[in-house]
Amino acid sequence: MKKAIVLVSGGLDSCVTAAVAKDFGFEPCFLHVNYGQLTEKRELKAFNDIADFYGGEKRLVVDISYLKQIGGSALTDKNIDVEDGAFDRVGIPKTYVPFRNANILSIATSWAEVIKAEKIFIGAVEEDSSGYPDCRKVFYEAFNNLLKVGINPQNNIEIVTPLIEMRKKEIVQLGIKLNAPLNLTWSCYKSEDLACGNCDSCFLRLRGFKEANIKDPILYRQYPDFYDII
Amino acid sequence: MKKAIVLVSGGLDSCVTAAVAKDFGFEPCFLHVNYGQLTEKRELKAFNDIADFYGGEKRLVVDISYLKQIGGSALTDKNIDVEDGAFDRVGIPKTYVPFRNANILSIATSWAEVIKAEKIFIGAVEEDSSGYPDCRKVFYEAFNNLLKVGINPQNNIEIVTPLIEMRKKEIVQLGIKLNAPLNLTWSCYKSEDLACGNCDSCFLRLRGFKEANIKDPILYRQYPDFYDII
Repeated sequence: MKKAIVLVSGGLDSCVTAAVAKDFGFEPCFLHVNYGQLTEKRELKAFNDIADFYGGEKRLVVDISYLKQIGGSALTDKNIDVEDGAFDRVGIPKTYVPFRNANILSIATSWAEVIKAEKIFIGAVEEDSSGYPDCRKVFYEAFNNLLKVGINPQNNIEIVTPLIEMRKKEIVQLGIKLNAPLNLTWSCYKSEDLACGNCDSCFLRLRGFKEANIKDPILYRQYPDFYDII
Repeated sequence: MKKAIVLVSGGLDSCVTAAVAKDFGFEPCFLHVNYGQLTEKRELKAFNDIADFYGGEKRLVVDISYLKQIGGSALTDKNIDVEDGAFDRVGIPKTYVPFRNANILSIATSWAEVIKAEKIFIGAVEEDSSGYPDCRKVFYEAFNNLLKVGINPQNNIEIVTPLIEMRKKEIVQLGIKLNAPLNLTWSCYKSEDLACGNCDSCFLRLRGFKEANIKDPILYRQYPDFYDII
């Protein structure tokens, strides 16, 4: 069985991405990073719950808390507030962690070289996303070009972004279709007990469930006005 | 004064690279990574000595010991021996740490985005090097293409590889010309007290000094046969 590394933050998108990797016939090898984000513990629990669900034997949890040393994001610096979600915001949100996905993909590539995994699945979403520069298709194309010249030539590794062109609604629908354990996921940027329902991440997630007309299986402290499937 | 991040392992090449960044008129901001390499402590000392020499106020030392969790290299896995240097070896040496430089450049880029540095200097050498895939010009070109699409569009960051086409002999000569503190550097992969004189890194370094007809200012436990400038 060919190996694929799946980056699993513990959120909705990464859970559905794991389901896709499994559905494609790969042995998923689960990679998670801690970087001092506010909800680090809750995300790690979601990661392990999802990896357990898929019987993942190979798991790697790495500490990249240097991103907290570097700061510059509401997710890694407590002096920068997490903005509330909004449909009309312009520009890059304060939750952007500078070049985070390149850091994570580099780690994944190092691991892939050692365990001979041929694919790295990441649940990045360009459409309907928060506007992070490292969530765009063009970024992953450039990273794949880097992989063509940057690794041991005996290895062959490709980044796969199955959700990149999907909207949240479609991701929810795909998750349901593939029986992904959406109840085990965690997306909230602010809270660890009940999801806040207010932050960017909760906002986009609930909008996706709303548009798919499916009830989000996790619980929220409060729901935004547009979400009426309770 | 415009800022440039300089990756300083503490070795000869990175020391000369710092000298070049300074000579180009940048404020050098010093970045060092620890990843559980065998000579971690000695390299960190060399890093700080070099940063002190240049009066570097901005320094970042990050722990990426996940590379040790990942393994796959003689530098990060004690079960894999560091090979002795040789002029005729074919293929990628066992000291290759999979995709290491991409990991380090990603960290540097995250930092550069936050402190608004415009350049990232790295002392990679393609000519006369050990054959690491992530030390080739084509790798840095691909990384620069990634930077064009992967960061906050308000920022502008470029990787600079001033030594990439130089031979060790020329690097030694350039270091002397720029008054780089070569006496403070550490290159040995194996030892922390006296350089071994046997490993790949000592071998290449001593060959460079030999060809430049300059005495290496650091001390060695033993010298290879070809090195007669003692």
